[in-house]
Amino acid sequence: MKKHNFSAGPAILPESVITQAAEAAKEFNGTGLSILEMSHRGKEVVAVMNEAVSLVKDILGLGSNHEVLFLTGGASTQFFMAPMNFLNQEETAGYVDTGSWSTKAIKEAKHFGNIEEIASSKDKNFSYIPKGYNIPSNAKYLHLTSNNTIFGTQQHIWPETNVPFICDMSSDIFSRPIDIDRYGMIYAGAQKNMGPAGTTLAIINKDTFSKADRVIPTMLDYSTHISKQSSFNTPPVYAIYICMLTLRWVKEMGGLSAMANHNKVKAQLLYNEIDSNPLFSGAAAKEDRSLMNATFVMSKGNEGLSDSFLERATSAGCVGIKGHRSVGGFRASIYNAMPKESIQVLVDVMKDFTQKHG
Amino acid sequence: MKKHNFSAGPAILPESVITQAAEAAKEFNGTGLSILEMSHRGKEVVAVMNEAVSLVKDILGLGSNHEVLFLTGGASTQFFMAPMNFLNQEETAGYVDTGSWSTKAIKEAKHFGNIEEIASSKDKNFSYIPKGYNIPSNAKYLHLTSNNTIFGTQQHIWPETNVPFICDMSSDIFSRPIDIDRYGMIYAGAQKNMGPAGTTLAIINKDTFSKADRVIPTMLDYSTHISKQSSFNTPPVYAIYICMLTLRWVKEMGGLSAMANHNKVKAQLLYNEIDSNPLFSGAAAKEDRSLMNATFVMSKGNEGLSDSFLERATSAGCVGIKGHRSVGGFRASIYNAMPKESIQVLVDVMKDFTQKHG
Repeated sequence: MKKHNFSAGPAILPESVITQAAEAAKEFNGTGLSILEMSHRGKEVVAVMNEAVSLVKDILGLGSNHEVLFLTGGASTQFFMAPMNFLNQEETAGYVDTGSWSTKAIKEAKHFGNIEEIASSKDKNFSYIPKGYNIPSNAKYLHLTSNNTIFGTQQHIWPETNVPFICDMSSDIFSRPIDIDRYGMIYAGAQKNMGPAGTTLAIINKDTFSKADRVIPTMLDYSTHISKQSSFNTPPVYAIYICMLTLRWVKEMGGLSAMANHNKVKAQLLYNEIDSNPLFSGAAAKEDRSLMNATFVMSKGNEGLSDSFLERATSAGCVGIKGHRSVGGFRASIYNAMPKESIQVLVDVMKDFTQKHG
Repeated sequence: MKKHNFSAGPAILPESVITQAAEAAKEFNGTGLSILEMSHRGKEVVAVMNEAVSLVKDILGLGSNHEVLFLTGGASTQFFMAPMNFLNQEETAGYVDTGSWSTKAIKEAKHFGNIEEIASSKDKNFSYIPKGYNIPSNAKYLHLTSNNTIFGTQQHIWPETNVPFICDMSSDIFSRPIDIDRYGMIYAGAQKNMGPAGTTLAIINKDTFSKADRVIPTMLDYSTHISKQSSFNTPPVYAIYICMLTLRWVKEMGGLSAMANHNKVKAQLLYNEIDSNPLFSGAAAKEDRSLMNATFVMSKGNEGLSDSFLERATSAGCVGIKGHRSVGGFRASIYNAMPKESIQVLVDVMKDFTQKHG
């Protein structure tokens, strides 16, 4: 039976990407070798790395002031690398706390400067995006998490400020156009909207920050990876190759505007059902709902039906929809690669379930 | 034409591992999903992670005092993480410099304590392993690089001391039995003898070191990864899966003693040809020769034939034998997965070449 992969991450990849990835694991481009056993200094792999970087630049509309890095260690490593590289101990940075990942970013940053938590939605279990907060004018940067995988919220309106953003876009990068000039840095773990687990994208505007005045181990210094084009040490070749394939797919699909339209249509289909079906109820504030992760619960009085619904969805091939323990209920992650048809299957299961139990 | 992959790393993997890896990239174990898009919290991937750890413990004969971690960032990240976690600023550690990677390990460690370089083979371009040096009795650990990929040397005799070793085994782990009780820590990038690029094995004896007294970012703290069984953040699932497949293969082949015998026979075949063929000459001291990376050059007066030999070898399907720029000439990396038959092809090319040009 066909599986509909609603996992939050590692997550669904386009079918054509999986086919090509599996083929390259067997043999890469007629070389007689698997890409898994090819040198990162060989011309074939260097070409893959270069194309991945070019596609990022092309799709996001980056300028020559932008450096594109493929690193490792996940967004969790960027939580401390960003302030370690860009913030001096006596300087200030503003952080907005929109959930677990922001909270961790704040915790790690505190070792490297004066971190002001300028807004938080913790009061309502991170079910909304804070707005209208004051940003200290001396802040070197404002740290934001563009999409909150766990809570199902997404930044749709960006704060008005001249302070540059450092943004964790792990779960919604390449899902919609962005105003690139507002960002000093963007980072994103690959395993949600870009590729498999194993690499982290970092985009750095060289004109925004100078290097902080502290000792930084070579591997934690962005300038190392910039000067060696992400190959100071052996990069995670295969993960980057799959990112390259996914980025080709994004481009073929029409780029970020097309992706945004596609994602809006898909999310609307699911949220319409959540809002109209009496058994279900959305978990996040409507205006802040994520187009990537829809969180919902059984409506009041129907909580006892949760397990039964999960079972029904699973038996229809919908996997990965159990909600995170911080929210409960359900979470359908509907990243770029999720086809509308799969969401329709889930919506049909919801309708059908309500007919039987409603 | 069949390719014989003599690359130094990323390097050859067993054929059966590549077949299974490619299959899992397409669909994993009848789940209806590619392993590339499966959650690291799901039972299938958790089982993979657990089996990989069990195999490491089983093959190396580890005890309950040993923790096995699959991290990222390569050995280059362990260069600073090991002293950052285990060495206080006023404490001393001894380092032996046996080539580029040791040199880098020393450079990174110097930020975190009193690093004494107690021996070096730099005087002869790292063509031998230093012996008979004094180890400071107050050294918290002795750092060694068991095999030097670039220079083709390997530690065959270990220093007599009660000081625990921290050892970079990136290029010869699982190639021979080791006396595990002598190591406080072992680390190894996967991409030579264990799997593809993208994960780093760290083995820590919990009884050897206590945690250093400094602030350590969460992701750089071994205790984080120990307490979360390498899944504090999303681990590089596919790279670990392939390590698991390779470790299964090592076990099926008979474990470390069988590997060591297999590797000795293979290396002897190649070194015999290097020593008996008048056109070639070994680059490393005979008693310190690596069983993993054989470095050799054209003998005196025949240097002009280098390009011609490289061409001949390439046209026979032998890829990756161009030597590193620090040594020149040739390097045949003959890791665990390299079959004897492929070495025979290279030896035949050498014989044939000498017949024509000798």
